[in-house]
Amino acid sequence: MITPRVLKGFRDSMPDLMMIKKDLISRLERVFESFGFVPIDTPALEYTEILLGKGGGDTDKQIYRFMHGDRDIALRYDLTVPLARFVAEHYNELSFPFKRYHIGPVWRGENTQKGRYREFYQCDFDILGTESQASDLEILIMIKNGFDALNLGLYQINVNNRRILNALLTKLGLSERYGDVLRIIDKIYKIGKDKVLEELGQIGVDQTLSDKILSILNIQSGEKSTGFKGDEIFSNLNRLKDEIGAESNQPVLDLIRLFEIIREMGMLDKFVFNPAITRGLDYYTGIVFECFIEDRREFGSVCSGGRYDNLTGLYSKNPVSGVGGSFGLDRLLGLMEDKKILDKVQTKTKILIFNLDDRFVGSYFKLAEELRSAGIPAEVVYDKGKIGNQFKLAEKKWIPFVLIAGEDEFKNSRYNLKDIQSGQEEKSLNTAEIIERIRRVL
Amino acid sequence: MITPRVLKGFRDSMPDLMMIKKDLISRLERVFESFGFVPIDTPALEYTEILLGKGGGDTDKQIYRFMHGDRDIALRYDLTVPLARFVAEHYNELSFPFKRYHIGPVWRGENTQKGRYREFYQCDFDILGTESQASDLEILIMIKNGFDALNLGLYQINVNNRRILNALLTKLGLSERYGDVLRIIDKIYKIGKDKVLEELGQIGVDQTLSDKILSILNIQSGEKSTGFKGDEIFSNLNRLKDEIGAESNQPVLDLIRLFEIIREMGMLDKFVFNPAITRGLDYYTGIVFECFIEDRREFGSVCSGGRYDNLTGLYSKNPVSGVGGSFGLDRLLGLMEDKKILDKVQTKTKILIFNLDDRFVGSYFKLAEELRSAGIPAEVVYDKGKIGNQFKLAEKKWIPFVLIAGEDEFKNSRYNLKDIQSGQEEKSLNTAEIIERIRRVL
Repeated sequence: MITPRVLKGFRDSMPDLMMIKKDLISRLERVFESFGFVPIDTPALEYTEILLGKGGGDTDKQIYRFMHGDRDIALRYDLTVPLARFVAEHYNELSFPFKRYHIGPVWRGENTQKGRYREFYQCDFDILGTESQASDLEILIMIKNGFDALNLGLYQINVNNRRILNALLTKLGLSERYGDVLRIIDKIYKIGKDKVLEELGQIGVDQTLSDKILSILNIQSGEKSTGFKGDEIFSNLNRLKDEIGAESNQPVLDLIRLFEIIREMGMLDKFVFNPAITRGLDYYTGIVFECFIEDRREFGSVCSGGRYDNLTGLYSKNPVSGVGGSFGLDRLLGLMEDKKILDKVQTKTKILIFNLDDRFVGSYFKLAEELRSAGIPAEVVYDKGKIGNQFKLAEKKWIPFVLIAGEDEFKNSRYNLKDIQSGQEEKSLNTAEIIERIRRVL
Repeated sequence: MITPRVLKGFRDSMPDLMMIKKDLISRLERVFESFGFVPIDTPALEYTEILLGKGGGDTDKQIYRFMHGDRDIALRYDLTVPLARFVAEHYNELSFPFKRYHIGPVWRGENTQKGRYREFYQCDFDILGTESQASDLEILIMIKNGFDALNLGLYQINVNNRRILNALLTKLGLSERYGDVLRIIDKIYKIGKDKVLEELGQIGVDQTLSDKILSILNIQSGEKSTGFKGDEIFSNLNRLKDEIGAESNQPVLDLIRLFEIIREMGMLDKFVFNPAITRGLDYYTGIVFECFIEDRREFGSVCSGGRYDNLTGLYSKNPVSGVGGSFGLDRLLGLMEDKKILDKVQTKTKILIFNLDDRFVGSYFKLAEELRSAGIPAEVVYDKGKIGNQFKLAEKKWIPFVLIAGEDEFKNSRYNLKDIQSGQEEKSLNTAEIIERIRRVL
């Protein structure tokens, strides 16, 4: 006999969790579609050369790679590289701006830790083929609608623009050090401020400059900055505008305009200007964003992304820029678990039809069909059994109503309905009355 | 530069096809849930020993198998083996009868042919842990509701019970030959009747017996039988009942009862008794079924399955019987393509808001938000451009309405709406009127 077990770092999705996950996904899909985003899918397997094109060191080690016949293939480890391949391959079939979303599993053979799995879902959305600032705005509004639909508590959308740091470094005569500075600053929450100053010193940025950069980025200590809200957004951006000077402060002016429209739309309370958000080693070149659920900031960003210049560069001579992000579905599920707002319901069934007599199985199923056509999920107990056990079944699965009918009831087409939670029983209802009664609580 | 390409036998899902596929899936999910079925998921990767436990010859060759560290792992090639492993592993967490559905991709490295891919979706549904005939009935009613929801034309649910052939062979003194006879008969549509008679002869079944078996199975020629409908169902089952005799005709009596309830429920016109349906080498032990869309019978069965005795035998000492089946999603999509009933719509967007002036971007997005909160998917043109190009964009994406607004319109909060297909323009509508106008055609 073979021991039934899943691979280390993998897990089954049990029905209760799966129902919640599907619910989250369908809420987000509805939001994406309300903005005209369309779904795509790409194969789980790709040529390894496609996936490793970017040559990230960690990726190389984590990727599930193998030979199939003489083909070197691998499981996708994110949805971004497949998107780049997709857009390059179908460039002539697509019309731009192309707004797509893609929700699906990815695989990474990384060391497992609490709450991290080797198979997890990504939920990506991007607008491709436009540099319009309106597309940056649209992405941010869509994220706001996404969080409103998810309904997980207060949230903050932290926005920055990488070109601001770039302009600042140019102003300070450090434009060629952009990548290094970014890489070092990104480590501040891991290695602390002193070590960052030391490393910046090693690449030739003196203490005065370093202090200036950190102060402007609002990274004063090893604590994560929560950014600026409301009017402070504009005062800080205006300060930056002057600091950088007219020659190269266009990125600041753009961000001011973006926040002005957000204020005009009455959404400013959901947004934060946070110059400390840099998205580390990622390939972003314009706006960047990270989002937090306010009372679970320790869970980290649950939706991140930004604008990039050239998604398709590895695969095509047609450069495609875009803006997009990703909701962290598994992180959201973990957060819901932590907040104890996971639903206990084990089924969508609203009514269990008891089986008092096997002769009436046809009638029970017919009743169930009538309820289903009225949009009410209904189940029939397969075999006659003790009525106590049938009640227990309803309770165990959190089914709110049971319907009890035998010979007399079918003679009159009037049935008995019991509300499991209140214990209240209503006798002699016809089907229309039952439907109306259940709809009241749906 | 790396050539952007997918692996042989794989394909990307473009938005138009993906929207239809998601629509099919969500129709089926709603049906499954209306019967109290719950979703599960299992990892794409399993230990190879789990997947090859059944030791099917073809499977061995087709499976994507590789080493990861010192683990011998493989991609799932169906959703049945993972279900068996799942039920055995979580036996004590589940309550039976357990009704689950599972929709997801599986991988088989088989030789590619037209319309067959190495990655495809399965859509399985099963009731586990009960031998009740009511569960057989429920599966069949659910399939009927599934086809009604898919709305792909007239369909036929062909039902048989394998135990009838078994009883018949027992009656004819051939009970030990059951497996061989089944295997040979299953080939009749490939190798023809004469060859089948020859092979049956080789295992010791003489011509008289063979003729009798084939006649009862209603396999008179190499043509696929379409089975018996309406009253013929009952006359043929009654004939079989007498033929087999009271000692072992319980399976026939069960099937008569099943069809009687189906008739009582007014669904008999969707069902066929087809003794030629045997499901070949599969592991079924009770009812078996195959379903066809009437005007596309050549596409083969688009939903198949049956009852089995012991799903978990390889992994557990707790035998779990059940009944279930699978909708062939990719076959359904191919069939829709063939029937030319694939939708041309490229987006769910119902209205495109033109951009006449970049100063109003905030107002355009605000309008879009109002429409979205009324449930109307809306898009904004990012940048001011020629109005002719904005019309072309709407036409290209089959967006039914456009909204045109500039300075005067925003002053009065009254906008111009144009129906793209009719060309009709309505001037000076407020938001409520626009919503009402679009809802009329939604």
